[in-house]
Amino acid sequence: MKSKTFLLSLCLLLLAAAGQTFAQLLAAPQVDAERRVTFKIQAPDAKDVRVINLSDSAAMGAKEYVLVKGADGVWSGVTNPCRPGFHYYELSIDGFRCSDPASQAYFGWGKWCSGLEVPGEGLDFYRAQNTPRGEVRFHWYFSKTTGALRKCLIYTPPDYDKNLTTRYPVLYLQHGAGESELGWTMQGKVNVILDNLIAAGKAKPMLIVMDNGYAAKAGAENPHRPRGEDNAFADLVVKELVPMIDANYRTLNDRNNRAIAGLSMGAGQALNIGLSNPDLFASVGAFSGGLWRFDINTSFNGLFKDAAKFNETYRLFWFGCGDLDGGFAGMQTFHNALEKQGIKHIWFPGPGSHEWQVWRQHIYEFAQVLFR
Amino acid sequence: MKSKTFLLSLCLLLLAAAGQTFAQLLAAPQVDAERRVTFKIQAPDAKDVRVINLSDSAAMGAKEYVLVKGADGVWSGVTNPCRPGFHYYELSIDGFRCSDPASQAYFGWGKWCSGLEVPGEGLDFYRAQNTPRGEVRFHWYFSKTTGALRKCLIYTPPDYDKNLTTRYPVLYLQHGAGESELGWTMQGKVNVILDNLIAAGKAKPMLIVMDNGYAAKAGAENPHRPRGEDNAFADLVVKELVPMIDANYRTLNDRNNRAIAGLSMGAGQALNIGLSNPDLFASVGAFSGGLWRFDINTSFNGLFKDAAKFNETYRLFWFGCGDLDGGFAGMQTFHNALEKQGIKHIWFPGPGSHEWQVWRQHIYEFAQVLFR
Repeated sequence: MKSKTFLLSLCLLLLAAAGQTFAQLLAAPQVDAERRVTFKIQAPDAKDVRVINLSDSAAMGAKEYVLVKGADGVWSGVTNPCRPGFHYYELSIDGFRCSDPASQAYFGWGKWCSGLEVPGEGLDFYRAQNTPRGEVRFHWYFSKTTGALRKCLIYTPPDYDKNLTTRYPVLYLQHGAGESELGWTMQGKVNVILDNLIAAGKAKPMLIVMDNGYAAKAGAENPHRPRGEDNAFADLVVKELVPMIDANYRTLNDRNNRAIAGLSMGAGQALNIGLSNPDLFASVGAFSGGLWRFDINTSFNGLFKDAAKFNETYRLFWFGCGDLDGGFAGMQTFHNALEKQGIKHIWFPGPGSHEWQVWRQHIYEFAQVLFR
Repeated sequence: MKSKTFLLSLCLLLLAAAGQTFAQLLAAPQVDAERRVTFKIQAPDAKDVRVINLSDSAAMGAKEYVLVKGADGVWSGVTNPCRPGFHYYELSIDGFRCSDPASQAYFGWGKWCSGLEVPGEGLDFYRAQNTPRGEVRFHWYFSKTTGALRKCLIYTPPDYDKNLTTRYPVLYLQHGAGESELGWTMQGKVNVILDNLIAAGKAKPMLIVMDNGYAAKAGAENPHRPRGEDNAFADLVVKELVPMIDANYRTLNDRNNRAIAGLSMGAGQALNIGLSNPDLFASVGAFSGGLWRFDINTSFNGLFKDAAKFNETYRLFWFGCGDLDGGFAGMQTFHNALEKQGIKHIWFPGPGSHEWQVWRQHIYEFAQVLFR
């Protein structure tokens, strides 16, 4: 072990000194034309090596793959055809779950894990084109609500630094449980999707603010699992984040130009915050989640009882879900109930599971009708 | 396996629906007052579990630690006292090297691996204070040099978006071999260090551009290991990056207000690019590297032969190295040779190895004398 590390270290130093360069030591899993993925894992001393699909079986063709050890000590295997899109996965090395050193790391499932990008046809909407690029800014701030330093990410459209008098509408966009403020950019490619839409004239240039959905009140008993009153995310958004963004960015700071949306846990946050604060938000989006024992008369403080008032208050109420998602039936029922009640909304049922590919599609659709 | 994943999945959905939240499922390694680190790894079916220190032995007190399995299937161990700072490490699970799922992931060693942050006294210079924060922007661009989409990171000082007529000097700052454009922010905390220096009036507000040091010429035979003419990084910086930054940011775009520096491999790049392009750069910094068979008469095209000319051309020539670094003697010799030759420079020898703690110190020192 010692000599190996030392040699690698020496090798890096020499390469550096000689100006020779290399980027990634390990070859990422290879996807073939049938969307089968080949894994090769160098683990000569392991007794059992598997690839664990962290989504539904169809995402990667099976829940897990037991790799086979070759004479060279490399464990390998080829998956069944995978579904196009982004899939979280892990390795299991003698039962120990870890990320694949050959993969880009993504924060999901409460930790850094591996992700597989499976290409497919007709998916150019999230492929970077040679068009003007927006930026994503890391913005740090000390929060009075949580008593801690926080980071949010802000997408600024391509012209933000050129049109210095233009003000922009703002979408607050939340990740799912176990993920972080990085999710929409790294897994979701939201910046690429918006760049493409804006270049095609299909979406209004907008700012997108992506904060971390975990926010424990200062002094909370368990800051990592804030419950009840200790969960200060709604307070943070309403009292601190929105004013801070309006103070620091060239926003259109009225409710008509402010929206909130999110996926899964973030859908719940978007519904709770957006539908409780009509003074702040005129548009709300819920992607694959957020409904819990829904009742048209009592949920969201009875907001849906008065259709005329709701329709007057909200410019856009949008929700979507993949048909393989465990929550699909609930959202379909929600849609039916709103239809019956005369509540204006857009319901976007589509193919797919509880996964990023669906949320890429959701933001792509949602952004096109937002702020119109 | 299947039922476990399903249950976790269900649990996440329920938590999300109920508005209950949690951030990180796993407890990170704990550092005690003596800077000993306790590791606990749940791997009941593994036969051999180790923590591998990816730096010199002193960084984490030993090159590796063999953990001991408890009755509960949790492998644990306590390190010797560690050196304060940031240390790359990995786990070895039955000989398979992987990152620790309980750690933040950092791109280093050509892959995503784990990092340990060991606190120490007198190290407030890289601790975020409640002072104005700069931002770090992710800036994507299509490069003609490489024929591919690239990303660079740009630190903008706290007032950048307030003083809309102010222009700023620019430091181009490069990571080391096996790392990426993320290194200076994630491992180096350069934004925190600059925020602190600027708040204290100890550094001029400046932009810092951090690109990826790997750049293969379009059509290169092996884009991951570009050699010779295929290694297009210098071309990229001179012909493409500098003009793009000057066109898109409020820079002071003369040589006196432009610097280039880097660590290890990046030190070599900074020396090569900075000392070959005096029309572009008046200040150069080399942190722990960049010298290769140095000869005062022939290295860098004989640039150091004419001390008067060199001293007139360069405003600041700064280099530093840790005394435990394998390259220390070479840099000390370089310093002696420059002294003898009458070349004005700053030599910053200090404690430490080939590690981020040293580079945090280097940027802290370098930034204070830069653009003065």
